[in-house]
Amino acid sequence: MSREIFYEISPADFFYRNRDIAGFSNPARAMYSAVRELIENSLDASELYGYPPDIYVRVTMDDNITSENGNVYTVHVEDNGSGIPARHIPSAFGQVFYGSKYKLRQSRGTFGLGGTMAILYGQITTNSPVKVISSTGEKYIHEYELMIDIQRNRPVVLGHKSYKNENGWHGTIIEVKIEGDYPRAMSKILEYLKQTAIVAPYANLTFVDPKGRLYRFERVTEEMPKPPSETKPHPYGSDVETIKRMISTTPCKDMLSFMMTHFHKVGKITAEKFLNFAGISPRKRPKTLTNNDIVELVKAMKEYKGFRSPSADCLSPLGENLLKAGILKELKPEFVSVKQRPPSVYSGYPFIVEVAIAYGGEIPKTGDILLYRFANRIPLLYDEASDVSWKVVHTLINWRHYNVDVQNAPLAVFTHICSTKIPYRSVGKEFIADIPEIEREILGGLRDAARELSAYLTRRRAIEMEKKRIDIFEKFLPKIAKFSTELAKEKEVPDVKILLKKVIKYGSEEEIHESQEK
Amino acid sequence: MSREIFYEISPADFFYRNRDIAGFSNPARAMYSAVRELIENSLDASELYGYPPDIYVRVTMDDNITSENGNVYTVHVEDNGSGIPARHIPSAFGQVFYGSKYKLRQSRGTFGLGGTMAILYGQITTNSPVKVISSTGEKYIHEYELMIDIQRNRPVVLGHKSYKNENGWHGTIIEVKIEGDYPRAMSKILEYLKQTAIVAPYANLTFVDPKGRLYRFERVTEEMPKPPSETKPHPYGSDVETIKRMISTTPCKDMLSFMMTHFHKVGKITAEKFLNFAGISPRKRPKTLTNNDIVELVKAMKEYKGFRSPSADCLSPLGENLLKAGILKELKPEFVSVKQRPPSVYSGYPFIVEVAIAYGGEIPKTGDILLYRFANRIPLLYDEASDVSWKVVHTLINWRHYNVDVQNAPLAVFTHICSTKIPYRSVGKEFIADIPEIEREILGGLRDAARELSAYLTRRRAIEMEKKRIDIFEKFLPKIAKFSTELAKEKEVPDVKILLKKVIKYGSEEEIHESQEK
Repeated sequence: MSREIFYEISPADFFYRNRDIAGFSNPARAMYSAVRELIENSLDASELYGYPPDIYVRVTMDDNITSENGNVYTVHVEDNGSGIPARHIPSAFGQVFYGSKYKLRQSRGTFGLGGTMAILYGQITTNSPVKVISSTGEKYIHEYELMIDIQRNRPVVLGHKSYKNENGWHGTIIEVKIEGDYPRAMSKILEYLKQTAIVAPYANLTFVDPKGRLYRFERVTEEMPKPPSETKPHPYGSDVETIKRMISTTPCKDMLSFMMTHFHKVGKITAEKFLNFAGISPRKRPKTLTNNDIVELVKAMKEYKGFRSPSADCLSPLGENLLKAGILKELKPEFVSVKQRPPSVYSGYPFIVEVAIAYGGEIPKTGDILLYRFANRIPLLYDEASDVSWKVVHTLINWRHYNVDVQNAPLAVFTHICSTKIPYRSVGKEFIADIPEIEREILGGLRDAARELSAYLTRRRAIEMEKKRIDIFEKFLPKIAKFSTELAKEKEVPDVKILLKKVIKYGSEEEIHESQEK
Repeated sequence: MSREIFYEISPADFFYRNRDIAGFSNPARAMYSAVRELIENSLDASELYGYPPDIYVRVTMDDNITSENGNVYTVHVEDNGSGIPARHIPSAFGQVFYGSKYKLRQSRGTFGLGGTMAILYGQITTNSPVKVISSTGEKYIHEYELMIDIQRNRPVVLGHKSYKNENGWHGTIIEVKIEGDYPRAMSKILEYLKQTAIVAPYANLTFVDPKGRLYRFERVTEEMPKPPSETKPHPYGSDVETIKRMISTTPCKDMLSFMMTHFHKVGKITAEKFLNFAGISPRKRPKTLTNNDIVELVKAMKEYKGFRSPSADCLSPLGENLLKAGILKELKPEFVSVKQRPPSVYSGYPFIVEVAIAYGGEIPKTGDILLYRFANRIPLLYDEASDVSWKVVHTLINWRHYNVDVQNAPLAVFTHICSTKIPYRSVGKEFIADIPEIEREILGGLRDAARELSAYLTRRRAIEMEKKRIDIFEKFLPKIAKFSTELAKEKEVPDVKILLKKVIKYGSEEEIHESQEK
């Protein structure tokens, strides 16, 4: 029997070996994922600091290198975001699992992986370093050339220059060479940009493709959603590991202040009541809790009903107006209903669901519902059928009940989930787990919106019927009027319009004529 | 503007924070994933060494601890596999990204993550250590109690004992406490066991559920597929990183021996021809290759057409007989066609696709095709619609063409992909990327099998028609014979059977009577 050889691999090595799971499974998908991850980093860097994003993306083909698997492209992404402090640039881009986003705060990035994966994929396919230029708006602009030591998961700095920052520029420019397949990735990239424009209507997005074609998505509003803030863990979602880490670093000398200091929405009264419920003395020193005490504490936290719900202050939903503006701008529907649900919580993480239903206008009839999914303002384009929203739309809602014939309706459904922790089920951030609480909120929102759609459709049908009725009156009334006038030997034919107004049952005449014009 | 805080997290911490992506998103799913990952480790430990697996799994409920989120269960899995050398036990179970499966060889495990995730999830929900008992069949049996230091990604050994191994036992016993929801996980766990029995008909699987119910899947054959062997990288699938690593450790003094030593199926003649194609001297020392030389070498490897295809020696498909036996045993269909495709290759990784179509018998009519997906002998139960097999079955095959009315047919389709590298698209190993080469092989295999099904169905229909025709003859012929006999004033009525035989067009009389009995 041969002996197995055991060894450890680094996280960078893990994702190098398993790039399929991070969305880099083939040249087309890699192209899409690289562009997308870099744009998301840029949007986060702008929005988290309240700058209306100005993002410029350019993909060019290096025509001297071609292979069967696609071509070598240079992806250039430039933003006006917060910039990255010089000392963190090498690790932020050249090390897997290094970042600033490992906290309870709503952001597009969550895994601290996407940008580094794009660079790693570029390196293994082209062996070229990445170029990063960044400034936080302070004295200098820094320029780095980096590669990744994959086996050690550490950045290798090949070059570092700095320039005077004359104009106080802040932002980041990143340029990476990767093997990709732009022609096959194009439709997804454009769709991604279009949908990003829907949920970020306050952003300017400029994209220049390898043929030099310019795509520009201009902001329609300067209004930005309030930047999300960081939050503390909610007791309900805290596990043994969380508590252990808190205990090891807490400055608190007793359990009362421990509860009040480290948990979300726990004040003195709640802390006292809870500790009483859990049978723990408020004066007990946190560091004296045994393993078993911690297990009991966590159990009590899950069972205690008196904690306040997490606050949604740390979340930054779009809001009904912004979402509506985005949908009207990009899809030009005849009807749209937007619903924001009240904040809710799963496993201690606060979340807010926003949904919309749009109907008619320029929405095409495709034989199925067009589903647009978003999470923390990221459009999700792949693996729709594995997503919680798909489940709700296709298995939990009976559309006939709302007068909608799915096969023949020009219908689009939007769902947007924001949370300090989106329960993605893939590292590629493509679909969301069917957490019962989230499912329930999507369902509730869509039912409300569907009721409005139903009322609209009923009214529209009534108006259409009325239009037909009025058409008949309009056609015959003048003749009848003329005929009657002649019969009565009168000279002046009566005003038919006045007569017509009397027979209109629904809506104003303008509405009816409007619907006739369509 | 607040400053971002940047820091590094360990791989264990990453998966602790993002357990949804590894299949631990809720108590039911966690229960399923834990059982499944431990069984897969056990099957690998047996099969890789040619032991027919005997696996015993027991889930018991610790009734003193309950919470709204499920209960605490003890999962106990025992195998007769190769065992783990004592010095590796702590890291193999208490460290993420540590293992023996990071090599080019077909195995169920690929990420080196599953077992450790089960233990990690158990620890954060119950704060209990895992118990591991193992022996490689040598002098001692070792017993460890372990926990994971999640922040450092290192095992913490709480206890270690060793016993004399009197009977030369080899295998591993693992016992982990986790918070789970068995009632909601039950159907998936049983389905998983049932499907595992289909693709591992040489294994004994015993499962005792929390109510003490015994489920036993006995082996139907002692015949084991040949254990897979390890292989070297194929030049076509080698990237810059692979080559760099080879160069840094190679003992080879020239490029000719470098090519022959480190690559799959590269002999002297192939190596010479290739180096000539690439414009590299056979006597060049590998360590003198510059970065740019390596890029050019990789490019040449992708372009050169003269490499031999990867050999499938390193793969261990089930084979048509074993797959058929498994299907007949578990589904009892009336028809089954099994097809093994010839070995093929994607990105330099060899793979073999096996497919089967089963029809009728005890297969239920569900209104859709029952799809059973397997990869390296793992049943895949979740996210069917995101899998390459689903795409082939539902979008690339026109079943009408094969006389199958999908909505009303008792039809099951099986796909089994084996490869040294399964392109899973999720860490939870639930679905496979639509790599064009794999797609093509599944499609080819299913078309062949569908043609056989079509022929069978045509024949069956013809036989049914014939049966009706014969029924009529059988009904009237004796009367006609009797009547004619009387008319002709003969005494002896002729033998109707002989007459009947003359009018049978299709099949033997037995076949017709057989199909009548059904």
